[in-house]
Amino acid sequence: MFESAELGHAIDKETWKKEVPVLREALLDSQLDLLQSRKFPVIILIAGVDCAGKGETVNILNEWMDPRHIETHALRELTDEEQERPPMWRYWRVLPPKGKIGIFIGTWYSAPLVENVYGEIKNAELDQRLERIIRFEKMLCDEGALVLKFWLHLSQAEQKKRLKLLEKDPKTRWRVTDSDWKNFKLYDRFRQVSERMLRATSTAEAPWIIVEGTDPRYRYLTIGKAIQQSLRQRLAAPEAAPPQEPFPPVTTAIDGLRILQTLDLTRKLKKSDYEDQLEKWQGKLNLLSRHPDFRKISVVALFEGNDAAGKGGSIRRITQALDSRHYRIIPIAAPTDEERVQPYLWRFWRHLPRKGKFAIFDRSWYGRVLVERVEGYCPHADWMRAYGEINDFEEQMVRHQTVIVKYWLSISQDEQLRRFKEREKIGFKRFKITDEDWRNRDKWEEYELAVCDMIDRTSTEIAPWTLVEANDKCYARIKVLKTLCERIEGALGKNGH
Amino acid sequence: MFESAELGHAIDKETWKKEVPVLREALLDSQLDLLQSRKFPVIILIAGVDCAGKGETVNILNEWMDPRHIETHALRELTDEEQERPPMWRYWRVLPPKGKIGIFIGTWYSAPLVENVYGEIKNAELDQRLERIIRFEKMLCDEGALVLKFWLHLSQAEQKKRLKLLEKDPKTRWRVTDSDWKNFKLYDRFRQVSERMLRATSTAEAPWIIVEGTDPRYRYLTIGKAIQQSLRQRLAAPEAAPPQEPFPPVTTAIDGLRILQTLDLTRKLKKSDYEDQLEKWQGKLNLLSRHPDFRKISVVALFEGNDAAGKGGSIRRITQALDSRHYRIIPIAAPTDEERVQPYLWRFWRHLPRKGKFAIFDRSWYGRVLVERVEGYCPHADWMRAYGEINDFEEQMVRHQTVIVKYWLSISQDEQLRRFKEREKIGFKRFKITDEDWRNRDKWEEYELAVCDMIDRTSTEIAPWTLVEANDKCYARIKVLKTLCERIEGALGKNGH
Repeated sequence: MFESAELGHAIDKETWKKEVPVLREALLDSQLDLLQSRKFPVIILIAGVDCAGKGETVNILNEWMDPRHIETHALRELTDEEQERPPMWRYWRVLPPKGKIGIFIGTWYSAPLVENVYGEIKNAELDQRLERIIRFEKMLCDEGALVLKFWLHLSQAEQKKRLKLLEKDPKTRWRVTDSDWKNFKLYDRFRQVSERMLRATSTAEAPWIIVEGTDPRYRYLTIGKAIQQSLRQRLAAPEAAPPQEPFPPVTTAIDGLRILQTLDLTRKLKKSDYEDQLEKWQGKLNLLSRHPDFRKISVVALFEGNDAAGKGGSIRRITQALDSRHYRIIPIAAPTDEERVQPYLWRFWRHLPRKGKFAIFDRSWYGRVLVERVEGYCPHADWMRAYGEINDFEEQMVRHQTVIVKYWLSISQDEQLRRFKEREKIGFKRFKITDEDWRNRDKWEEYELAVCDMIDRTSTEIAPWTLVEANDKCYARIKVLKTLCERIEGALGKNGH
Repeated sequence: MFESAELGHAIDKETWKKEVPVLREALLDSQLDLLQSRKFPVIILIAGVDCAGKGETVNILNEWMDPRHIETHALRELTDEEQERPPMWRYWRVLPPKGKIGIFIGTWYSAPLVENVYGEIKNAELDQRLERIIRFEKMLCDEGALVLKFWLHLSQAEQKKRLKLLEKDPKTRWRVTDSDWKNFKLYDRFRQVSERMLRATSTAEAPWIIVEGTDPRYRYLTIGKAIQQSLRQRLAAPEAAPPQEPFPPVTTAIDGLRILQTLDLTRKLKKSDYEDQLEKWQGKLNLLSRHPDFRKISVVALFEGNDAAGKGGSIRRITQALDSRHYRIIPIAAPTDEERVQPYLWRFWRHLPRKGKFAIFDRSWYGRVLVERVEGYCPHADWMRAYGEINDFEEQMVRHQTVIVKYWLSISQDEQLRRFKEREKIGFKRFKITDEDWRNRDKWEEYELAVCDMIDRTSTEIAPWTLVEANDKCYARIKVLKTLCERIEGALGKNGH
C-alpha cells in the first residue's frame, strides 16, 4: 500500500515556481466560490507518519488559501469539559459550517492507531473503532461535507534521517521527544497497523490519499492540487435531486398488528395511589441523584409523544425531585442559523450533559423520523439514514456512561380530542391549540406508522424506548418516574460498588 | 442594612395556600409573555448567607415557572477552559438569550466577598472589583436585560440553628462542610463585608433585594412576587424610544487638527529593505510564539482601517510567521441569530483565545463606534456607552495576561480611489468593489471623525491603538509585524525574566 509513496517522488524547483502561482490562484478562487455558495463544509484530515511534515503542510495550505475562512485544529490532550463527554464531542464542537474549511491534525484516527500499536487494544477492538469512524465519516458525507483525508508517508530510512536532522539543530531539538524515538522503534508495527487502518477506512465517499512526505514540494503540490480538484469538482456538481427511489416502500406487517396497538390505554392509577407512588419515586430519584457514584454517569432523558400527551407534566414530575443545579431541559425548537449550517445531529451534540448532570430533551433528534418524515421536510433518503445515525449517536453516549431514557407518550385519538377541546375551553394561552395541532391530528395514521417504524429501528438493548400509556396522566407520570429510577439504578449498579 | 431581615418575617399556612396558586399562574403567564415577546433576557441572582435556602428557593422558582425556559447555573470550580480566559468568560458563555431566564447561584459576588473576608484582598481591591461588577451589570441593563438580585439573610442565631439541624439528620449531614463552620465563625466579618458590598452595588438599574431567609414561605413568596412584579412591569413598559438627547454634540477640536492628520502617509519602505525586514520580524515573531513563557499569555490582535487599506495582507504577513495550530482568524460578519439575542460584546467574548494562542480579528467590536455609528445602525446612546464597555472588556483581557494589539490602517482618499479602480480593473472577484464601498467613501469625513473619537476614547495605556500609515503596503506590513513583536516581547518580559 505504501510502495508508491517510497519511490522518491520529487518536484524540481522550476516546475514548482511555474505551478504554484497558478495553483494558488485556483485555490483561492475555489475557496471564495465555496464561501459564497455556502453549499457544503470541507473537512481536511492531515495524518501520517511522525516528522512527515504535517504541520508544515497545514501552514502552506493556510498560506495558499485565505486563512480567514480556515480553522486548523490540532487536538491533543482532552480538556476536562471534553473528558466528560463522549470522545467524538470534541470534533463535533469544531466542525466547520457550510462554506468554511476545517483542517484537522491529530484526528479521530490517532488514538485507535497508537493504542493498537502499543497493545492497549486488540485487533478486534481496532476494527470496531474503525467501523465507527467509517460510519461517522459517511454521516458527514451524507450531510453534504467534502471529506479529504491525506496520509503523509515516510520510509523508515527517511524518518530516521529526519529525526536525526531535527535533533542536530538546536532550534528544532525540542521537537524530537522520547515518544518519537519510541514510535520510531516500532516503525514496522506502525506501518502494518496503519495499512490495515487505511485499507479499512478508505471508502468511496472518503478515500485516503497517500502522499510521499520526503520532498516538500512534491507533498505540497500533490495535496494542494487534490484539494483544488475536489473543491472545483464538487462546486461544479449540480445539486443532485435527492434519490427518492429505489428505496423500498415502507410496509406495515401484513396482518396490520402494530406495536402501539398493543398498549393498554385504559390503564389507570387512583388519585390516592398516585400521591403515594409519586412521593415514593420522587424520593427515590432524589436519592439516586445524590448517590456518590452518580458523579460518574450522566442522564439523557427524552420525551416524544402525541400532541397533548402530557410531556411537559411528566418532565415537571422529574424536575420536582431534582436539584435545579443538576438538570437542564432542552426544548427543541426550530434550528438557529448556526445549527442549520451543520450536520443534523450537531444541535443535539452541543447539549450533551457533563458527568453528574441530567439533560432532559422536550422533543429530540427523533423529530427527523417523525415530523420531518411525515411532513416531508426532508427527503426520504435523509430520514431513512437517520435511524442508523441516531443509533450510533446513542451508542456513543452509552459507551460513555450516559443513561439514555426515551419515552413515547401515547394517547388515543379520542383522548387527544377531549384534551384539545378542554384546552380550547380554558383558553389559557400557554395551552393554545394551534392549527398545526389540528393538522397533525389529521395525519394520525401516518404519524402512527412513523412511530412504529421508529420504535422498531431504534429501540435497542442499550437505549430502549419506554412506551407510556398516557390516557391517564397519573399512570403515565408514575411509569415515567419509575422507569427513570430503574434505569439509573441499573447504571449505578453496573459501575460497581 | 440587615435589621429588617431579622424581624422574624413569616407567612402563615393559610395565606400561603391562598396566595401561591395565584402567584404561580401570574408567573407562568408573565414567563410566557416574555418568551413570546423575546424582548429581553432575565438574569436572577440568588446570593446570601450559607444555609439561607438558596438552592431550595431556586428549586421552587423552577417549579412555579416553566423550567424549560429557565437555566440554573451553580458555577463553582473553574473548568480548565474557563481558567484560561478572563474570570467573567464563564458567565458570558451562559447568559440567557432574550425571552429566557437565567438563574445564578454562586455569582460574580462570591469570590470578592470570600476573598476579602479571609484577608486575601484588601478593601481597596474589593472596592475595585465591586466597581467592575457595577459596570458589568450596568452594561447588561443597558443592553436590555432585567437583572434581579436577591440576598438571603439569616441572623447568626438562625444560621447556627440550621447548621446544627442539618448535621443532626444523617440524610443532610453531608451538606455541612468544614468550610461552613469556618465561615460561621466569621459571621460578623461576613455580615460587615456583605453590607459594604450590597451597599456599593445596589444601583438604580439593579438594586439588591434583601430577604429574610428564616421562614421558607416568606422567602419564596417574597422572591416570587418580586420576580412577577418586575416581569409584569417590564413587559408592560412601552419600548422606550432611545434617548437621542441630551447627549452633547460630538465636537471636533476648534482648530480642526485631528490625530489622523498627523500621520505621514508618504512613509515608504524600499522593496529590498522590505524583504530584509519581513524576514527579520517574521523570524522574531516565530521565535516569540515558541518562547516557553508564551504558554502563559495569549494574544488578541485586531484590524480596523479604511476599505482597501490592506488589512487582509497584513494579517497574512503575521500568520505566515506562525504555526497554523496556534492562531485563529475571526472575520467579523453580520451577527448570527444566536448572537443577536445577546449583549453586543457576546459575539466577541465567545472567541477569546486560550493561553498560548493568537486570535486575530478582521474587523472587531469597534464596528459599534465606526460603521454602526456612522450609518446610524444603533442609537446614539448605544454607541456612546460602547467606548466604556469596550475599555472594560479589554481591561479584563489585559488583567488576564492577554496582549491586545489594535491596528488602524490608514490610507489617503486618493490612494483608496487608486486601489478601488485597480481592483475594478483586475475584476478579480475576491476584491470586488461593492456599492457599499463607494457609499462608505462618500462618508469619508464622518468616518474620519468617528475614527478620531474612537482613538481618543479607547487608546489606553494597557491597550493602545497603533496607527499605521498604510499608503505604502511594505511600510505598513513591517510596522504591523514590528509592533506585534514588541508588544509580545514586553509581555513576556513582564511575566518574569
